[in-house]
Amino acid sequence: MNIDKRLHDRKFVRTFFTTPTAEKGVDDSAKKLRSAIGLRGMQAPDVWVPDNEDATAPNMRDEGASNIAEVVAEDGADFPGEIHPRVVWHRDSPATRYKGFQHMLEIADPENGAIEHIDGFVIPEVGDIDDWKKADEFITIVETEYGLEEGSLAMSVIIEGGAAELAMGKLRDEMGKPDNNLERLFLLVDGEVDYTKDMRAITPTGALPEWKELRHNTSRAASAAGAISVDGPFDDIRDIEGYHDRITANNAMGMTGIWSLTPTQVVEANKSPLPPEEGSWLIEADGREIELDDEGDVQVYSGDRIELEDEGDYYELEIGSDEYELSEEELQEKLVDITAYVPSMTDIVDSMEEFEAAKEAGKGAIAMTRSTTVSIDGIEVEISSDRMWDEATYQAMMAPISLFQDVYENRPDQHDDLADLYGEDVVERAIEVGN
Amino acid sequence: MNIDKRLHDRKFVRTFFTTPTAEKGVDDSAKKLRSAIGLRGMQAPDVWVPDNEDATAPNMRDEGASNIAEVVAEDGADFPGEIHPRVVWHRDSPATRYKGFQHMLEIADPENGAIEHIDGFVIPEVGDIDDWKKADEFITIVETEYGLEEGSLAMSVIIEGGAAELAMGKLRDEMGKPDNNLERLFLLVDGEVDYTKDMRAITPTGALPEWKELRHNTSRAASAAGAISVDGPFDDIRDIEGYHDRITANNAMGMTGIWSLTPTQVVEANKSPLPPEEGSWLIEADGREIELDDEGDVQVYSGDRIELEDEGDYYELEIGSDEYELSEEELQEKLVDITAYVPSMTDIVDSMEEFEAAKEAGKGAIAMTRSTTVSIDGIEVEISSDRMWDEATYQAMMAPISLFQDVYENRPDQHDDLADLYGEDVVERAIEVGN
Amino acid sequence: MNIDKRLHDRKFVRTFFTTPTAEKGVDDSAKKLRSAIGLRGMQAPDVWVPDNEDATAPNMRDEGASNIAEVVAEDGADFPGEIHPRVVWHRDSPATRYKGFQHMLEIADPENGAIEHIDGFVIPEVGDIDDWKKADEFITIVETEYGLEEGSLAMSVIIEGGAAELAMGKLRDEMGKPDNNLERLFLLVDGEVDYTKDMRAITPTGALPEWKELRHNTSRAASAAGAISVDGPFDDIRDIEGYHDRITANNAMGMTGIWSLTPTQVVEANKSPLPPEEGSWLIEADGREIELDDEGDVQVYSGDRIELEDEGDYYELEIGSDEYELSEEELQEKLVDITAYVPSMTDIVDSMEEFEAAKEAGKGAIAMTRSTTVSIDGIEVEISSDRMWDEATYQAMMAPISLFQDVYENRPDQHDDLADLYGEDVVERAIEVGN
Repeated sequence: MNIDKRLHDRKFVRTFFTTPTAEKGVDDSAKKLRSAIGLRGMQAPDVWVPDNEDATAPNMRDEGASNIAEVVAEDGADFPGEIHPRVVWHRDSPATRYKGFQHMLEIADPENGAIEHIDGFVIPEVGDIDDWKKADEFITIVETEYGLEEGSLAMSVIIEGGAAELAMGKLRDEMGKPDNNLERLFLLVDGEVDYTKDMRAITPTGALPEWKELRHNTSRAASAAGAISVDGPFDDIRDIEGYHDRITANNAMGMTGIWSLTPTQVVEANKSPLPPEEGSWLIEADGREIELDDEGDVQVYSGDRIELEDEGDYYELEIGSDEYELSEEELQEKLVDITAYVPSMTDIVDSMEEFEAAKEAGKGAIAMTRSTTVSIDGIEVEISSDRMWDEATYQAMMAPISLFQDVYENRPDQHDDLADLYGEDVVERAIEVGN
Repeated sequence: MNIDKRLHDRKFVRTFFTTPTAEKGVDDSAKKLRSAIGLRGMQAPDVWVPDNEDATAPNMRDEGASNIAEVVAEDGADFPGEIHPRVVWHRDSPATRYKGFQHMLEIADPENGAIEHIDGFVIPEVGDIDDWKKADEFITIVETEYGLEEGSLAMSVIIEGGAAELAMGKLRDEMGKPDNNLERLFLLVDGEVDYTKDMRAITPTGALPEWKELRHNTSRAASAAGAISVDGPFDDIRDIEGYHDRITANNAMGMTGIWSLTPTQVVEANKSPLPPEEGSWLIEADGREIELDDEGDVQVYSGDRIELEDEGDYYELEIGSDEYELSEEELQEKLVDITAYVPSMTDIVDSMEEFEAAKEAGKGAIAMTRSTTVSIDGIEVEISSDRMWDEATYQAMMAPISLFQDVYENRPDQHDDLADLYGEDVVERAIEVGN
Repeated sequence: MNIDKRLHDRKFVRTFFTTPTAEKGVDDSAKKLRSAIGLRGMQAPDVWVPDNEDATAPNMRDEGASNIAEVVAEDGADFPGEIHPRVVWHRDSPATRYKGFQHMLEIADPENGAIEHIDGFVIPEVGDIDDWKKADEFITIVETEYGLEEGSLAMSVIIEGGAAELAMGKLRDEMGKPDNNLERLFLLVDGEVDYTKDMRAITPTGALPEWKELRHNTSRAASAAGAISVDGPFDDIRDIEGYHDRITANNAMGMTGIWSLTPTQVVEANKSPLPPEEGSWLIEADGREIELDDEGDVQVYSGDRIELEDEGDYYELEIGSDEYELSEEELQEKLVDITAYVPSMTDIVDSMEEFEAAKEAGKGAIAMTRSTTVSIDGIEVEISSDRMWDEATYQAMMAPISLFQDVYENRPDQHDDLADLYGEDVVERAIEVGN
């Protein structure tokens, strides 16, 4: 087995959107499924998860399994993302595991007509690696029973305890053994609510801990085992800014996917990891990164954390309670140090093309210059900084572009949105660069 | 073996209190042991550790072993916590390991009359998992020699190096093998001073590093292997506020136990993880969480970090150096965002009972509303927020209640303190809820 | 195998300095190698790495291998540090691995005369542990082919992906197996640029993530497997203060080595982990540690974050936006809490000698007192604090001394610099203490 040659398509998954599979006391118990499967464009997730576990009441789950089969059979062909139903499972309960197996058999039954649109299953509450293998075995049986190729159904797991976290460290040793089909592994999803319970963690307000180490370990396992890591649900569904910040922090750990609970969250999670359409300048103001106001030729800082005065023969710069007396040159250097540029999609494509041309011309490294005018308290200062680009820089900047290319290839329904966002021309260059 | 069915009693350990076993040049070299074994109520630890290693001078340790046997034989029957002597051990020294074995044989000798009150042994300075097995084997021999059931003596270890940290990741693979009795494992205790030495870490002032990753890995291992994680000693014994903060941070990682060096630390560590008797409101003021002053109907902020002015047609809110112009509704929303409520024991029990009743009535999720009036610079603002409670929320809030119930069951000597703290009525409801 | 008895000499490595091995279009393509091998004293690294991988253009690497052999043969005898060339390698490319093998055969060929000055090889882009073994095997073949003792050439690896990070957790299980010579393992070096790429991490500005967990895991693996951990390159070569801060943070994680890209970085990295020649006082001022100005008898705080006023019957202390009304005694206590002393080399040696004398006299613990006068807003306050030193404190303070002694033993070319820095007398005491 070569775990870098995954059986499954996506290299990046931005969104993991769960929907209840059955509701009591409504005319159509599958109404929410029908609504979700109709989503398109930025509102449609990369991975849609009809959720026959926590989102659906325990006594509605048999009906939920039927609903999934019915709705996916009807409308699955036109859904632009992948479809991975979540079934019930628990490392400590054979009865729950058997129920999950039965639901998979039901959903995948060719007579129901859904299976050709089902990409895989999501298994929650897994334990140690041998528990993962039990789920893998059930999926293998489902495949055999219905004449599907072994390994063709993906398996994603929710990490909800210490044993599962440790199991992620064993994947490379276990995948490819002749007695399993763990190559089907697709998403490693953190489930922080149940993880918190399993770890017996207590916070005064009941807020979830950050679990940074868990997220690192999940991202690392995805990198090591050719899977994709996805962060768990962000409960405060009104706080889109907080959701965006969480995504940005996740991206810096190599975790580009996140759970979405609402279509609004789906839109944010689909867009957040993509490079911005406009570049912007940041300034580090006493511990906080603040975006400068782009006033055309000048980038203006208008907060209180930084103050600048021209004292004739020197400049006085105050950052928080730190004071500096600086010559013009020292001031420029200091501003170069505390500012940073967030490149737009166009900037990234420009730089990559420039580096590719230089490489073709036999150069291994080139300096990319970035200049602007920063204005603080009415005083304008020209700044300019060089960044050396070598092969490694080029490769590192490739990550957002690879993500973009993966989206472009797999989500034709988002082509219009991408063209609206960046312009046709930039989109065309972005899908070519690096190939 | 089912590692979730531990041989040992406690599910939570709050306090791990060490006492020197022998002192030179005093009338009674076991004086400190006698004093510690007399502790009761909140001053008595969950786990008491007569410390025949670092706390006792090397040349006094043979006498220390005899002292342990003598004092525990005399007064062990009435001690309210568990008793786990620490013996000498070192991964790199067979002589030290043999000495530890001899001390265990001495302490556990039925002729000394202590063994019926001894719950297990603490093994410091362990190395890789095979080194843990050597200690396990010695304890098995002690058990066999003295007619005790195999596995009946608990084993706790101190993690004082990188090899032991890695060994914690192997516990699930090694426990339950026919050639060991590692199911006896009880506490995983971080020993940060020696860990720092083993890692060759250097800090300018000689202060201990935070070692957050170690603490996460210890908590995770405890979760995965059915053990209990305990943080190491907090050296500045006068700084009770700092000790409390460390406990709060540990609890958020799933580590509810901590080493205690003094009875004052024991009291703090026994109480810190329990829910407070009174609820309180927190406000996030420019990077710091500050408790609002409870003035009956109103929660008052009286610091300098937040300022609020009524400008007639809008409100001006300043948080640190950030300024906002807000309508009344926007102001309410902003305050909902930056405040949080710390529920009291009564609040938690109320919410859990409410959710249980709703579940019985067939509802899977209910909204819990929390309202108050916040006053800043004399301006009063009503705020109200809903939190959805589902099964997962309920389970997560169960952690402090489970801790409370574990304490109530195992520490009858603290019943009066708990009743004083919360009132009889709340205590009675708290021990019933969730069962 | 006893992995604590390394085959290789250094216990600490401060500096890992890479140099291109061949450049196109210059008179002497080995010019940079010749320049680097001439470095002495604080400008010379502990480990010098002729870099036949990333620093050298792909089509120049065969010439690079010859250049290494030639330059090291000529001048290697006089180079004061160790010499470990980096060859090409990639976990995913057999062709690259074979090329690396050929370059090692070339560099080590006794006919070239370099091998007696070569201490080992650096292998980049390793994957899982079985990939490390392939490199180990090639080095074994090189040794056998040229009549060198098996294991005599060190092997260092660059950790540039999740698989390699996980492999570090397996070293103890794999080293010492009869079919490998992994005891040759020397440095574990983090390569954060390629690691970021492998983890597919994205940051808005393209800045490297901190990767704290990776650094912890590398340091832990070094501790567990008897190797030495080294942090990756710090790109902003002008920002020496930032480089110093990174080294300080690394040291607190047990990582004393860092990659150096320039001789200026080498000097900083050689000096940073050594204790300072002068002690200094720090004060925690509203979230920042600030060094007090040493004005002889008085330590003066002259910033804006802390304000102190004598109100007659009490003192008013303001730290950030927190206000305290304190008696003189309370003020002293508060200042003891927020200040800390950074001991000089002399201070450390004094304390260690004092503790050694106490130990000889039969005492297990002694109080070390540290007093000074702090001046804030013109008000002088005497402060004094005791710190208990026991064997553990003594051992922990041993780390910077062990580092110093390791440097002293292995780098005679730095003796003059050390004497200039600390004075002959202190140096002599420092090399004796603890032995």
